[in-house]
Amino acid sequence: MKKNDSPEKILELLKNARNIALFTHSRPDGDAIGSTLALKSALERMGKKAFAFCDTEIGHKYNSLGFGKFFSDTPRGNFDLYVALDCGDSGRLGDLSEFFLKQTNTLSIDHHYSHISFSKYNYVVDCSSTCELVYKLLKLSGTEIDAESARLLYIGLSTDTGNFSHSNTTSEVFAIVSSLAEKGIDIADLYDKLYASSRFERTRLLGRVLGRIRHYYDGRLCLIYVTKEDFDATGTKKDDTEGFIDYAINVEGARIGVSICEHSPNVYKVSMRSKGENISEVCAHFGGGGHVQAAGCMISGFFEDVVDKLLKAVRDIVWTDL
Amino acid sequence: MKKNDSPEKILELLKNARNIALFTHSRPDGDAIGSTLALKSALERMGKKAFAFCDTEIGHKYNSLGFGKFFSDTPRGNFDLYVALDCGDSGRLGDLSEFFLKQTNTLSIDHHYSHISFSKYNYVVDCSSTCELVYKLLKLSGTEIDAESARLLYIGLSTDTGNFSHSNTTSEVFAIVSSLAEKGIDIADLYDKLYASSRFERTRLLGRVLGRIRHYYDGRLCLIYVTKEDFDATGTKKDDTEGFIDYAINVEGARIGVSICEHSPNVYKVSMRSKGENISEVCAHFGGGGHVQAAGCMISGFFEDVVDKLLKAVRDIVWTDL
Repeated sequence: MKKNDSPEKILELLKNARNIALFTHSRPDGDAIGSTLALKSALERMGKKAFAFCDTEIGHKYNSLGFGKFFSDTPRGNFDLYVALDCGDSGRLGDLSEFFLKQTNTLSIDHHYSHISFSKYNYVVDCSSTCELVYKLLKLSGTEIDAESARLLYIGLSTDTGNFSHSNTTSEVFAIVSSLAEKGIDIADLYDKLYASSRFERTRLLGRVLGRIRHYYDGRLCLIYVTKEDFDATGTKKDDTEGFIDYAINVEGARIGVSICEHSPNVYKVSMRSKGENISEVCAHFGGGGHVQAAGCMISGFFEDVVDKLLKAVRDIVWTDL
Repeated sequence: MKKNDSPEKILELLKNARNIALFTHSRPDGDAIGSTLALKSALERMGKKAFAFCDTEIGHKYNSLGFGKFFSDTPRGNFDLYVALDCGDSGRLGDLSEFFLKQTNTLSIDHHYSHISFSKYNYVVDCSSTCELVYKLLKLSGTEIDAESARLLYIGLSTDTGNFSHSNTTSEVFAIVSSLAEKGIDIADLYDKLYASSRFERTRLLGRVLGRIRHYYDGRLCLIYVTKEDFDATGTKKDDTEGFIDYAINVEGARIGVSICEHSPNVYKVSMRSKGENISEVCAHFGGGGHVQAAGCMISGFFEDVVDKLLKAVRDIVWTDL
């Protein structure tokens, strides 16, 4: 990773620019959208022109919160400064990656530990969220954080910490959120919209899937699966299974949670979570990969054979003492 | 409600006492346990004797966090001061109510809006949690909040705000939690233990129930039900259905969520939630009651007749324009 520039230098870059292009990653999450739009709003209040770009559409959840209209997918004309927000590497910019890399006056604002430098200037700090970094820049600049910016920054801090449940939820995160909440945020309403609501069809699908949850190895491994028949019967799609794997890993006593989703006939997408066991190695065995506690792979075969192969790999690689 | 005494007066009472009995409500939740044990710990560090009493056992979740051992159900001997924590009325003390009301030097520390005065001294403020009030007393007293007390107060603040998701989550709540987190709290681990973990059998029961979720009135009312057969088939009990109704009210477009649980042959316990519709009136129609947005009642009859009666009552009382 390239050496960071100081927050003061970053602020100077932003202050000296008049026409700024802000980029964030494909299929943007709450932190990508929140950090980009909060910075856009602050720059505009500083009298500048600022435009937000993303190569994909804003998903249903954030679009229904009204954020889709602020993004465009095709940057036209010239800008003084090109800023990438919440992108751990240039590939995260998707179709806009090539355009961004052609520019000279580029800046990255990002919180990913694994950030690979691709900008001329960098403000990359391993912390809860890119919104935390934008908050600090705005405080340093003396720019007032208005109610809508507070809401945007809150969304990023909340979503990237799992609504204050992950280990990246620090004392500083709570202090920032306290100061944002002072501006007036309807926290209960936002929680409903960000986390609680689920389509009727998705709830039915979840029911089908959890009704047949399995456990192996004395409950140390819990497994759920979703078939094409499930999608057809409930009118759902793969996207609707987001978060289902949490139910497997959250079973009391489970150390490994597995979700198997039918991708095409006799081809299954496997997602794994663990409480510390290195399941990345298990997925690598099948040509996949990921992190120690969250990984994935594809396995071909008849469903019950796929389950057998996977259980054998877990026993061979993780629980060799069993 | 009786006029409050000042926090300074409350502190003086605590400081003047040497042998203090702390009481909290039956089937104590995170705020009851957290506020009682954090105050107990602080008083002990102030050189006093402090004992915690509760008429019921500490539930599985909090017992597995190690808190059960600090409570007893039978106060013996004499105390200088008797403190009730997190009790909106004396009835909340259950079997210990009579004993508490016989005493003269009594104090209530409580955050319930609807508090009915039953103590000589009162520190009753409508806020997030009793833990918020204990935190303020400890700050005012200058007593250091150690790591374990911070964890206890965090538990109360987190559980009574739905892990920072309800409308009682104020800027001040976040500021307090920020200061507690500085003492070192394993937030992710605590979240897992308080909210994420579910017995395997309960997860299967949830699956059975959600797999047949119903909707009525163009999706404005979502309904789930649990029968004795479900409990038998999954090895679960009524306690395992806690939180199930959230899945009904959280369906997109739902204004009313209903959960019907078989109580005994042809007798059903109905729980209702709403997004503002007055369902307390619907439950009152069947001899039950509760709050505008959360109420319950018992209805007898064959299951489908119970559903019909309930739907008719909703239409007659809430959605008369349908």
